[in-house]
Amino acid sequence: MKTIRDIGAMRRYARREQASGKTLGFVPTMGYLHAGHDSLVKAARRDNDRVVVSIFVNPAQFGPREDFNRYPRDFKRDETTLEAAGVDVIFYPSKAAMYPEGYATYVTVDRLSDVMCGESRHGHFRGVTTVVLKLFEIIRPDTAYFGCKDFQQTVIIKKMVKDLNMDVAVRVLPTVREPDGLAMSSRNMYLNGHERADARILFKALKKAEDMVKHNERRSRSIIGQLKQVIGRTPNTVIDYVKIVDRDTLQDIAIVKDTAVLALAVTVGKTRLIDNIVLGRKYVRS
Amino acid sequence: MKTIRDIGAMRRYARREQASGKTLGFVPTMGYLHAGHDSLVKAARRDNDRVVVSIFVNPAQFGPREDFNRYPRDFKRDETTLEAAGVDVIFYPSKAAMYPEGYATYVTVDRLSDVMCGESRHGHFRGVTTVVLKLFEIIRPDTAYFGCKDFQQTVIIKKMVKDLNMDVAVRVLPTVREPDGLAMSSRNMYLNGHERADARILFKALKKAEDMVKHNERRSRSIIGQLKQVIGRTPNTVIDYVKIVDRDTLQDIAIVKDTAVLALAVTVGKTRLIDNIVLGRKYVRS
Repeated sequence: MKTIRDIGAMRRYARREQASGKTLGFVPTMGYLHAGHDSLVKAARRDNDRVVVSIFVNPAQFGPREDFNRYPRDFKRDETTLEAAGVDVIFYPSKAAMYPEGYATYVTVDRLSDVMCGESRHGHFRGVTTVVLKLFEIIRPDTAYFGCKDFQQTVIIKKMVKDLNMDVAVRVLPTVREPDGLAMSSRNMYLNGHERADARILFKALKKAEDMVKHNERRSRSIIGQLKQVIGRTPNTVIDYVKIVDRDTLQDIAIVKDTAVLALAVTVGKTRLIDNIVLGRKYVRS
Repeated sequence: MKTIRDIGAMRRYARREQASGKTLGFVPTMGYLHAGHDSLVKAARRDNDRVVVSIFVNPAQFGPREDFNRYPRDFKRDETTLEAAGVDVIFYPSKAAMYPEGYATYVTVDRLSDVMCGESRHGHFRGVTTVVLKLFEIIRPDTAYFGCKDFQQTVIIKKMVKDLNMDVAVRVLPTVREPDGLAMSSRNMYLNGHERADARILFKALKKAEDMVKHNERRSRSIIGQLKQVIGRTPNTVIDYVKIVDRDTLQDIAIVKDTAVLALAVTVGKTRLIDNIVLGRKYVRS
């Protein structure tokens, strides 16, 4: 495995492999890897001749009062993990190389970026789409892998790829969870012991929603109301949103149907956590 | 030569040629080709194994009160021209394929897009960068060719390519002119006889500026003032702007130096025309 820091060198590696007919799988990350990333890397390893994992804490997707500076970083540990997983290249560019002085170009996906997490995190998704497009341009992967925990992000990236006619397949893999159901996230390390216990409410809420739908409750308002009550009773939590949306348009839907996804964002202590579950598909058609 | 209308078919052609090691030159156009386009096609033909020319009147770069509907189109004539020029493929996609219902993704280059032509044509350059990026994604050319008549456009596209780490070389070729100096443009066909005569003032103004610099006038304000007077005396003309700007930042510069470009936009009759000339480089260092 090699670590490439230079953008030009990364491009030359990718073009050389592609010219010799090798397929290239790509997993973009912000590092501080967990089992969710592992599952993406495993899938990339299984499907492709070469696997590139990028580690880049992308300043463009953090708001001015967000946690860019304290976002966890541990390159040595990540390197060991990725070496063991059989990754070919870590792409580890500097902030100055990715956003040189005078940087001015951004990719925006209208509408989808303004709802849900976009309402409280202005400019967040513009930062995500911009950096993902840049990484795709440098690497030109055949397939890129994303985790479903960041549901809205996956919808927006798929939309960007389609709208801009980008020649890359986007694969979205299931959320990986801790034994008690908490979705894996690099930000879980911010939680202290009490908060970690309280954070279980996110998964419990999802399961409650699933249960209500199984018992034939289809009214989003009723499901959301119940969830807000349950979460509201949990200490240290502030609800950002609980929504049932269409999985393609991200618009609120009133009656749970085939394409319904329940998504929520809750701040536990000082840490904003997100999670989601497909409500339609599995249950509604039964 | 073949004409490809389908985006997927265009991509497959390009990938097949690239996989066999062929270099690909690309000339994006809105059709109704003139000698300016010819010079781009010739350069592409000289430098590359395969040449693709796109013809697409891009709705995203026209404002609601602009000339999208009456923009001149003559595919048959263009086809004959390009066949004779030895082009391999005309890419001629439909509006519905390029911007399907629900289309939402745009590329913006901040600052550079808001000045000069961007001040009177809101959203114009967002439309240009978006469609150029889409075409680059589909075709993945080694080199793309643009004419210098659209000076601001070339600066913005080069900036986009650099910022987004796109793997394409951008070549800008000199403006091709009518015998009396008028820059070639598909929009010249809008001009009636009188207007066509009056339109010569754009080139005359550029030459006047060049002459003033040759005679050691370096103050932008003085040069611009003189040009506005000369153009103002010409019938049927309304000045949009006359500016001396830095060729990279497009910011106004007060004293003509090495990187100075004089650019102007003048409406003649009902037709908005643009032109530009490098004032620095050639004269200022002498």
